[in-house]
Order: sequence, then C-alpha cells, then structure tokens
Amino acid sequence: MSDHVAAAIARATEHGGDDLAGRLRFLVELDALKTVMRRNLLVDGSRTENTAEHSWHLAMFAWVLAPHADEPVDLPRVMRMLLVHDVVEIDAGDTYIYDTDGAATKVAREQAAADRLFGILPQALGSELRGLWEEYEARDTADARFAYAVDRMQPLLLNAVSGGRSWREHGIGADRVRAVNAPIGDASAQLWAVASAILDDAVRDGRLAAQ
Amino acid sequence: MSDHVAAAIARATEHGGDDLAGRLRFLVELDALKTVMRRNLLVDGSRTENTAEHSWHLAMFAWVLAPHADEPVDLPRVMRMLLVHDVVEIDAGDTYIYDTDGAATKVAREQAAADRLFGILPQALGSELRGLWEEYEARDTADARFAYAVDRMQPLLLNAVSGGRSWREHGIGADRVRAVNAPIGDASAQLWAVASAILDDAVRDGRLAAQ
Repeated sequence: MSDHVAAAIARATEHGGDDLAGRLRFLVELDALKTVMRRNLLVDGSRTENTAEHSWHLAMFAWVLAPHADEPVDLPRVMRMLLVHDVVEIDAGDTYIYDTDGAATKVAREQAAADRLFGILPQALGSELRGLWEEYEARDTADARFAYAVDRMQPLLLNAVSGGRSWREHGIGADRVRAVNAPIGDASAQLWAVASAILDDAVRDGRLAAQ
Repeated sequence: MSDHVAAAIARATEHGGDDLAGRLRFLVELDALKTVMRRNLLVDGSRTENTAEHSWHLAMFAWVLAPHADEPVDLPRVMRMLLVHDVVEIDAGDTYIYDTDGAATKVAREQAAADRLFGILPQALGSELRGLWEEYEARDTADARFAYAVDRMQPLLLNAVSGGRSWREHGIGADRVRAVNAPIGDASAQLWAVASAILDDAVRDGRLAAQ
C-alpha cells in the first residue's frame, strides 16, 4: 500500500514539483488522525471519539460559540488552530487529560511529532501550522485561550449528555473535572457558568462522582 | 440519554438565554455526523470513512492546496464551506457519488434536513451556514468550485493509495471516475493533471477497471 502512496507522490512531483508533492504527502499522512482514539464517547454512546472527527467538531464549536467569547477573537485563526492542534497525535498518540504520567512525556513526544509532520510541508506553510499549534499549547493569546476553552467544553458536554460513562469508567470525580475544565472561564464566563451548572446536575443525578 | 441533552440545554437557557441554548443544541446534534458512513476507505484500509472526519480532512486539503487554485479563493470561507457542506447528511444520509437513484431524491431530502438543522440556530448564524451550503451545491463561485474540487480530490487520492478496493467493490470503472472527478480541473489544472496521472496508474496496475 505504501507503494501506492509513493506512486501518487511521484505523480505530484512530475506535475507540481516538490512543493505539491510535499503538500500531498502531508495530506495522506493526516489520514492517520482518524485512527487515533480518545477516551470520551459519542453522544449516542456507541463508541469513543477519534481525534480527526473531534477536530472537526471543535472547529464547529468555535464558529458557533465565538460570540460568547469574553475577548475579541480572530475566528478563522481559531478555527485553523483547532483543526491543526491535535495533528501531532498521529505520532505521539492522544494523552488523556486526566493522565498525569502521560503528561510528563507529552511535550517531548509531541515536539518530535511536530518536527517530522510539519517538516513534510513547504517551509512557510509548515511554520504557519507549527506556529498555530505552539500558540495553542502556550495559551497566552485570546485566540489560544478561546480555542482551549472550546476543547474543554466539547468533551464535557459530550460526557454529560452521554450519561457520564466515560467519567465513571476512568474513575474521574467532580473535583478533577472542575479543575481541568476551569480554563473555560478564562475565555468565557458565560460558557463556564453553563458548564458548571451541567456538572452540578451530573453530580446530583450520579453521572459524575462528587469526589 | 435525550433527558441529559434536555437538561444541558435548559442550563444553557438559564445562563445564556435562547441564543446560547440554540447554539449548544445544534452542536450536540452535529455529533451524529460522526456516525454517517461514506463508501471510501481510510488510507490503511481498516474501515470506511465517516462524514465528520471527512469534513475535517477536506478543510485541511483546502488549507494546504489553496495556492494551487487557478482563481483566487477566500480560504477561510472555503474552509467554513467544507466544514458545513455535509451537515445535512445527519438527516439525509450520505448519497454515494456514483448512486444515480439516490441522486434523484437527494435535493428534497437535503432541503428538509437543512430546514430542520440550520433552523435550530439563531437566525443570522443559521442563514450564514445555510448560505455556504447552498453556495457549495450551486458551484457557481470560485470558492465553491475550489471546495468541490477538494471534495473530489480527497476520496480519489484515498481510493488510489488504499489500493482501489472501494472502486472495485462498487463496480466503478475509470470512465465514470474520470467523469465524476473532472470538475477538479474547473478549479485547478495542476491538481487535475496529478489526479489524471494517478488514475492512469491505477488503471495500469489493476486498482481501477478500465471501463
């Protein structure tokens, strides 16, 4: 099968040079993000979510929720940031937000992944994508804070409406959920008020353990 | 489970009014696009692709391939168009591009889906999303032609590099593949040259039937 990839890239080189060949090779590599699995379930509880469809959903969250950001955001940038922010998981895998052991090695694994993956692209474009990923990780701009808030809000909402099974199966209680998701409030007081009320409901009816 | 959705929406109404409640309800509905299955396989051949992850991949294709468009395009608009263009499949299902029977009822099914889904949103935002979907379908702007080209280029590339199994299993020959994908050339002569060469290779080595 990788022979077929090589043949397609060779055709891109013939008709568009190294620039187009690098772009197509990157796009073929991206396909693997559809096989990186996350811990949270879909709304219907049928399976866990993969990172590619998660990234699509986040871009839609940003689009639809942008008017509720407390600071002005550059929506097209935020959407691009969210589409690209998990691409490093193709090599580094998904690190569960409640996995403290995984967090210790996450930075090194993801830096190596970024070197390889963004390095496939023509340099200016590779730098653009890597810059947005780094900005997301640093979280010190309004765009990155809103992108991060959206990336917390989406699984919180999915976990709550799918009955909390993902929280219970991983033994996660409300204190940790509130701590991990509090950065929603750094970007939108209103979204954090909604999220907090949803978590209170989940504790009250047993979807989420109190501690 | 739908009780949990209703409870979450009620919390959104309390803290953000009908506007925020409609936005969150739409975002929860969108999750179902992850369970709409297409005909083409992933690159690794492990399973068919779903429409949500497909939409993410298309937005990345547009971002990465925009410099190869023949006419200037508004990239953020094209990316939003691609993220939203298949949302109607939540109600209407995916219509295989080679399914002529399905094509006869596609318009009516998708119009009803658009009425329901975009109608959940606050009116201005619902009109924005619907307008982009209608522009994509009409294909008479440079943005829509490039978005459509990308939506043809991606499955062509995935089918070719995954060994052509999807074409063979559905009995699709090169004449139909060329006819369906020729609109790639309306947006980018270079991408169509690459795609044509990839198809020629696939016919030559038996991944794609000649007729």
